[in-house]
Amino acid sequence: MIFSSALLENAVNEFAKLPGIGKKTALRLVLHLIRREESEVNQFSDAIAALRREIRFCASCHNISDTPSCTICANPLRNHALICVVENIRDVIAIESTQQFNGVYHVLGGIISPLDGVGPDKLQIDSLVERVTNIQQAEIIFALNPNIQGDTTIYYIGRKLTHLPVKITTIARGIAFGGELEYADELTLAKSISNRIPVEHYIQSS
Amino acid sequence: MIFSSALLENAVNEFAKLPGIGKKTALRLVLHLIRREESEVNQFSDAIAALRREIRFCASCHNISDTPSCTICANPLRNHALICVVENIRDVIAIESTQQFNGVYHVLGGIISPLDGVGPDKLQIDSLVERVTNIQQAEIIFALNPNIQGDTTIYYIGRKLTHLPVKITTIARGIAFGGELEYADELTLAKSISNRIPVEHYIQSS
Repeated sequence: MIFSSALLENAVNEFAKLPGIGKKTALRLVLHLIRREESEVNQFSDAIAALRREIRFCASCHNISDTPSCTICANPLRNHALICVVENIRDVIAIESTQQFNGVYHVLGGIISPLDGVGPDKLQIDSLVERVTNIQQAEIIFALNPNIQGDTTIYYIGRKLTHLPVKITTIARGIAFGGELEYADELTLAKSISNRIPVEHYIQSS
Repeated sequence: MIFSSALLENAVNEFAKLPGIGKKTALRLVLHLIRREESEVNQFSDAIAALRREIRFCASCHNISDTPSCTICANPLRNHALICVVENIRDVIAIESTQQFNGVYHVLGGIISPLDGVGPDKLQIDSLVERVTNIQQAEIIFALNPNIQGDTTIYYIGRKLTHLPVKITTIARGIAFGGELEYADELTLAKSISNRIPVEHYIQSS
């Protein structure tokens, strides 16, 4: 692309650095911003600069936070003995958006994946073990993606916790609500049969 | 989506105001920015704020510009008697990127479209007529999208110029290079036959 304005070219190049945004999309977004009020555009750029400058991570669960302790960890109404272990912040947002979980989180910051060079030492595992050590009758729910890396991570952390009186569970894997049996992969279908649940229990929970 | 951070929520909402960017994409972009260096993020937000604050439009062709006259209009090596009329700035960038056009532009800022409430008075038509009046042996090339609105605009402007000794042309419409005849629409195919060009001319221009 050939631009007649250095300001335009600069803004397009900055947008095109974002993941999944090509030059043409970047140009479309930038030309949209030019048509907006200057105050609105400043609001946009300020929001991004402020986020990067002021963002903190919760000292306890490593979730993104505006304060030293995040709003979930600081909430006395939540069950602090029920810890949901997730890979990243997006997972916290996804589970919070269900409005069904009343425990707290622990964000690992990734998943054990030797092929990608991510070993257990790069993840927030030690701090999880430390948290659990200080809680009476803790329960840990692993809410990791159902794949090899997720299972490896569950196995690794599980072994680290064997000496502690903690209950360890994982989110149910099965046929998604609205899904169709015939299109489910074999592993999921097999697991959903071997982990079948009593109908009275199913009716109660739905 | 439920966020535990107001800073995060604010940045995601600002991104989601952009066209074609939903909440999930906005979140992905924002989380990407958090992982980048603060200096890089400031560079991003500054580029956007500076663009909106300092951008000008060329007094002659209405193209986007850093200076009162854009780099194309200010270039003495370009043919100022050959004016390519386009709908918007994206079209200027597209044609400039071919590196084949040595004339200048005139950005209408839209296209005549009564259904969308865009009449001729909202477009830079008077300034085009004024430009042409001051040029000896001008040629105007209409490079508008081939549809009803484009044709209406060409007809309207053409009538405004009848009293002037100006040559008026439009970009060729036909089967795109690499396109396949059998998938071309009937109108394009018919036009490409009625506007057929001598082979010697075709070979010279390619």
